[in-house]
Amino acid sequence: MNFPSKLIENAVEEMAKLPGIGKKTALRLVLHLLKREEEATLSLTEALTNMRTLIQYCRHCHNISDTDVCAICASPTRDRSLVCVVEDTRDVLAIENTAQYRGLYHVLGGIISPLEGIGPSDLHIDSLLTRLSESGIGEIILALSPTMEGDTTAFYLTKKLKPYNRKSNVLHHCPGHPRGR
Amino acid sequence: MNFPSKLIENAVEEMAKLPGIGKKTALRLVLHLLKREEEATLSLTEALTNMRTLIQYCRHCHNISDTDVCAICASPTRDRSLVCVVEDTRDVLAIENTAQYRGLYHVLGGIISPLEGIGPSDLHIDSLLTRLSESGIGEIILALSPTMEGDTTAFYLTKKLKPYNRKSNVLHHCPGHPRGR
Repeated sequence: MNFPSKLIENAVEEMAKLPGIGKKTALRLVLHLLKREEEATLSLTEALTNMRTLIQYCRHCHNISDTDVCAICASPTRDRSLVCVVEDTRDVLAIENTAQYRGLYHVLGGIISPLEGIGPSDLHIDSLLTRLSESGIGEIILALSPTMEGDTTAFYLTKKLKPYNRKSNVLHHCPGHPRGR
Repeated sequence: MNFPSKLIENAVEEMAKLPGIGKKTALRLVLHLLKREEEATLSLTEALTNMRTLIQYCRHCHNISDTDVCAICASPTRDRSLVCVVEDTRDVLAIENTAQYRGLYHVLGGIISPLEGIGPSDLHIDSLLTRLSESGIGEIILALSPTMEGDTTAFYLTKKLKPYNRKSNVLHHCPGHPRGR
């Protein structure tokens, strides 16, 4: 495609870097922003910039949070003996939307994937072990995706968790799991 | 959906305002940006802000352009007796991609749509009539979308162009037209 302007070309190229958005869709989105008033684009870019630069993570469970400790970890009504280990925030959202789980979470921030160069040291595994040794956690639920990477991570964690002698369940297909089989 | 952070919620809501992007897709895009390095988000937002605030339009044909007069209007090899009237820049891109048309364009910036409150005065129709009376245009092609609004606009333009006594063709289904039947 020959764009009539370098500015449009840059914007389309940046938009097309997002997953699931091709050049045609990117152009449609960019032209939509051009048609709407300038404030619409500025409030979109401001929301994205703020989100990326100001975001915080809960110091206990590593879930996204606006505060140092997230609402779930801070809640007095949650069952503190139960921890559900998930890949990312989307899993927490999916499980929370079922309103069936009352325990805490631990967000790994990814799964072990040698192909993408993600090893155990890139995930929040050490802090999970610290949580285990420090607090009264009695049961761990590994709610990871039913893929090769998810299985590898679950296997690795099961081995790491063994010395702590806690009950641990591998729950591959949790209700509403966005990557469920 | 209960978002764990106001920053995420704002970003998702802004993204979901784009056409064809629902809340679920918006969340996926936002979490993707969070996973990538900060520069990726900043270069996206910078490209969008620059595009929206610095964009210029050709003073002859109203197409998007980085300069006062666009490359097509400035080109000495284009046929200046022929003008193709289109709705927006996407139509110019589609027709240019066929590499079959060697005339000039006139971008209306929309089509007459009473339902959306867009009347003839909101479009670049006056400047089309000025171009007609000033330059040696011999033929007008109306390449508008084959919808009710497109037909209305074509009908309105045909009536307006009549006194100028130029050859005018209504071309509803131009090759590669993104909104073609």
